[in-house]
Amino acid sequence: MNQYYMNLAIIEAKKAIKHNEVPVGAVIVKNNKVISKAYNKRESKKNSIKHAEIIAIEKACKKMKNWRLDDCIIYVTMEPCMMCCGAIEQSRIKKIVYGIDNPNYGFTKELKNVEIVSDILKDNCRSLVQSFFKNKR
Amino acid sequence: MNQYYMNLAIIEAKKAIKHNEVPVGAVIVKNNKVISKAYNKRESKKNSIKHAEIIAIEKACKKMKNWRLDDCIIYVTMEPCMMCCGAIEQSRIKKIVYGIDNPNYGFTKELKNVEIVSDILKDNCRSLVQSFFKNKR
Repeated sequence: MNQYYMNLAIIEAKKAIKHNEVPVGAVIVKNNKVISKAYNKRESKKNSIKHAEIIAIEKACKKMKNWRLDDCIIYVTMEPCMMCCGAIEQSRIKKIVYGIDNPNYGFTKELKNVEIVSDILKDNCRSLVQSFFKNKR
Repeated sequence: MNQYYMNLAIIEAKKAIKHNEVPVGAVIVKNNKVISKAYNKRESKKNSIKHAEIIAIEKACKKMKNWRLDDCIIYVTMEPCMMCCGAIEQSRIKKIVYGIDNPNYGFTKELKNVEIVSDILKDNCRSLVQSFFKNKR
């Protein structure tokens, strides 16, 4: 199941590339049902908050009509930053499943109340980011 | 000047009380000009992201048409949490000026690239929060 939902997150991340955004995608799942999907829109929205994880959380809150996303899991192609880790904790999301580590900004090690699973479809997630930055140069 | 802008943040926090929200207010200032003001709307928006600081940052990005809030200072009545500290760092805000410590969720000690000033109008900020929770009981 982890690979299935991570693939959906990768599809989201690919949409970001088309808009010249760093390719990060996120999917929120509850009881094996997809609640929301999103990709990074920081540049297109000119808004520092609009990481994939934040947009996915906002959509999920809207759908659930609740700020508490109990029993939800977030799948994200890259390890979340401090802001997104904080948002995940604030939302009561119980588990983060991510693809590649973010050695500079990854912050999951600081979380105490959220289960963490890493390295899911790691190679696919890494090649997305690598090819994006190669094309930027 | 710190006290002047903190007073504006306190005025915002008081608006939150009217909506039965935990009273936290935030103001973003650049070159001694107020860019945005906001108060906590987590309950009314049913959205875990909508802390005062996040709404103020989003408004400021919109106004500046830029996700980079260079040379901006954020004034906030209570010490920001992990999510808001991350958002402040992501936005390139250079300085946080806050009223009261948040012993459970305050996260400013983890920030490396943001200047921190605390205890501004501390008593006013504290009595806001204390009277809110007293009335809740």
